[in-house]
Amino acid sequence: MIDNPYYSPQVHEDYRLISIGRLELEEGGVLPDCQLAVRTWGTLSPDRDNAILITTWYSGTHQVWADAYIGAGHALDPERYFLVAVNQIGNGLSTSPHNTPDDSISMSRFPKVRIGDDVVAQERLLREHFGIDRLALVVGGSMGAQQTYEWAVRFPDKVLRAAPIAGTAQNTPHDFLFTETLNEQIWSDPGWNGGEYTSNTEVADGLTRHAHLWGTMGFSTEFWKQEKWRALGFGSREAFLTGFLEPYFTTMDPNDLLAMAWKWQRGDVARHADGDLAAALSRITAVTYVMPIDEDMFFPVRDCAAEQLLIPGSQLRVVTDEHGHLGLFAVDPGFMPQIDRHLAELLETPAG
Amino acid sequence: MIDNPYYSPQVHEDYRLISIGRLELEEGGVLPDCQLAVRTWGTLSPDRDNAILITTWYSGTHQVWADAYIGAGHALDPERYFLVAVNQIGNGLSTSPHNTPDDSISMSRFPKVRIGDDVVAQERLLREHFGIDRLALVVGGSMGAQQTYEWAVRFPDKVLRAAPIAGTAQNTPHDFLFTETLNEQIWSDPGWNGGEYTSNTEVADGLTRHAHLWGTMGFSTEFWKQEKWRALGFGSREAFLTGFLEPYFTTMDPNDLLAMAWKWQRGDVARHADGDLAAALSRITAVTYVMPIDEDMFFPVRDCAAEQLLIPGSQLRVVTDEHGHLGLFAVDPGFMPQIDRHLAELLETPAG
Repeated sequence: MIDNPYYSPQVHEDYRLISIGRLELEEGGVLPDCQLAVRTWGTLSPDRDNAILITTWYSGTHQVWADAYIGAGHALDPERYFLVAVNQIGNGLSTSPHNTPDDSISMSRFPKVRIGDDVVAQERLLREHFGIDRLALVVGGSMGAQQTYEWAVRFPDKVLRAAPIAGTAQNTPHDFLFTETLNEQIWSDPGWNGGEYTSNTEVADGLTRHAHLWGTMGFSTEFWKQEKWRALGFGSREAFLTGFLEPYFTTMDPNDLLAMAWKWQRGDVARHADGDLAAALSRITAVTYVMPIDEDMFFPVRDCAAEQLLIPGSQLRVVTDEHGHLGLFAVDPGFMPQIDRHLAELLETPAG
Repeated sequence: MIDNPYYSPQVHEDYRLISIGRLELEEGGVLPDCQLAVRTWGTLSPDRDNAILITTWYSGTHQVWADAYIGAGHALDPERYFLVAVNQIGNGLSTSPHNTPDDSISMSRFPKVRIGDDVVAQERLLREHFGIDRLALVVGGSMGAQQTYEWAVRFPDKVLRAAPIAGTAQNTPHDFLFTETLNEQIWSDPGWNGGEYTSNTEVADGLTRHAHLWGTMGFSTEFWKQEKWRALGFGSREAFLTGFLEPYFTTMDPNDLLAMAWKWQRGDVARHADGDLAAALSRITAVTYVMPIDEDMFFPVRDCAAEQLLIPGSQLRVVTDEHGHLGLFAVDPGFMPQIDRHLAELLETPAG
């Protein structure tokens, strides 16, 4: 267990830890006391029919949703909906390698967790803790999209609408390899020490290189060509790297990132249909908007569109943003209006 | 000086080393005895008007041109043309960090070389050694395209036709950052030792990670999705990585790769016009076919097309290949027919 101030209520507001008890994992491991970091907004209606689940991406938490996606004027409006953001297992707020007090599963001993485990944990949380049996919407970006697809395939009766943004139902081989290069930056840092470092600062070099890979693959060629970082308040490319991208990742926990990466690499709803992706996606009954970002270099529109065609009654809603995949941070002024428009329309669509 | 069998006549056939003497470099350094590794095909015509210069890419040599691009039935036909392939400085065959016997510039002491230095060296070689003053064509891919553009801007009277394939006249910031991540894989290997290793095998870990970055950025998302490696004779993704991509790069010299990378990052013909790219490209009088590869992830069509618009009388000829940038290896059956068609048409176009 490591004290890392990034994963604290000072940085991540207004969440609480809720134990869902013992969680047996798909790969055979166990989280004896699975704690999920949860933030909610709004009020559950008497009919319990206004609940929306928000899932989180690699390296992400509920905070970016709080800051950019949720509030009056957004589709995700707490005046109308009961919004529940659940931080994924391993993200540093929910039970994770660096924060578990259980020495038998801490750090390098953390068991392998899959997207399916997150969704099983979330379903139990919603049902047992909030009394929610059906979701008006599941929405998430990137690894959050993986969880969204997993929900829609695994629990079709519980998901009325689904909005996977910038992610796929079945991770692609290119994505697997990209993620592996992220991991290698951490593994190759002698400070990582097989996962038994005493502070993330010992892995600063590896985390910095890891950040640089996000620089080329996470944004787009146009992001750099058009110097979009200027609009983020930086005076040079180097200042953006050292002032934003590097500190963003070097504050994080290496084992937590590796736990999420392992999960990301293996996201695949076809597990529910003996490897048949078409059969798995055909189970979806949710009204689904597939929402790739046009400049995404590793969840390209092409891959998302191919899956969308396999989802009954779904629609492809391409989001344009030259920030590429990291457009998910909603820093482009044009991003949230598109997200809000699509989600509002989706939420107005009759379902169930 | 290191003995590395990859850079030998056993692997690279039929080249000879030609000294062009002392080469003073743009950045202030000097190569006291610049040796260029040169291979030629065909016969120079009495009018000396059938010479074609072939330039090489990062990590590449003349060999891939010999194996795939040149010969009877190809546009680059030795029956018609006198073809001169000049290996770029630092590529391991021409004067390079690992092979120079001059201790004052060997290994970590190798001076910074620019694309412009290569082109100056090539021009001197062609003029003094072969008596060639004008080129029917300059053609090269990737860093070879950078050299092609440099030729057309720096020596407009000497270049009748130009075919930059999968490369840009002014390196993009995204490309700079991508290349930097390649470098970081080498720098971060303790075996690199500031450039003072005794064998490339000491840097095998870094070179392996370096190879993996090529795996994600060098190919395309479709290359992996469609399992194009099967056509290359591999039974699995892992077999392709460990059987092709890793050995391809781990046999190479780290300092040589770094020397080429530094050059690649700073390729920019705008140096000739006080930073004004449009002014520099407007100097081109060569009939120019700009030939990006449609699935290239780091020299995207968009970047190449923007430059093409600035070149008088030029044409954009997009090459389709799901192998992406490394389509340059000409392994896709559809690749060479496109290259040959464009180059043949270009060579038939009156110029000068």
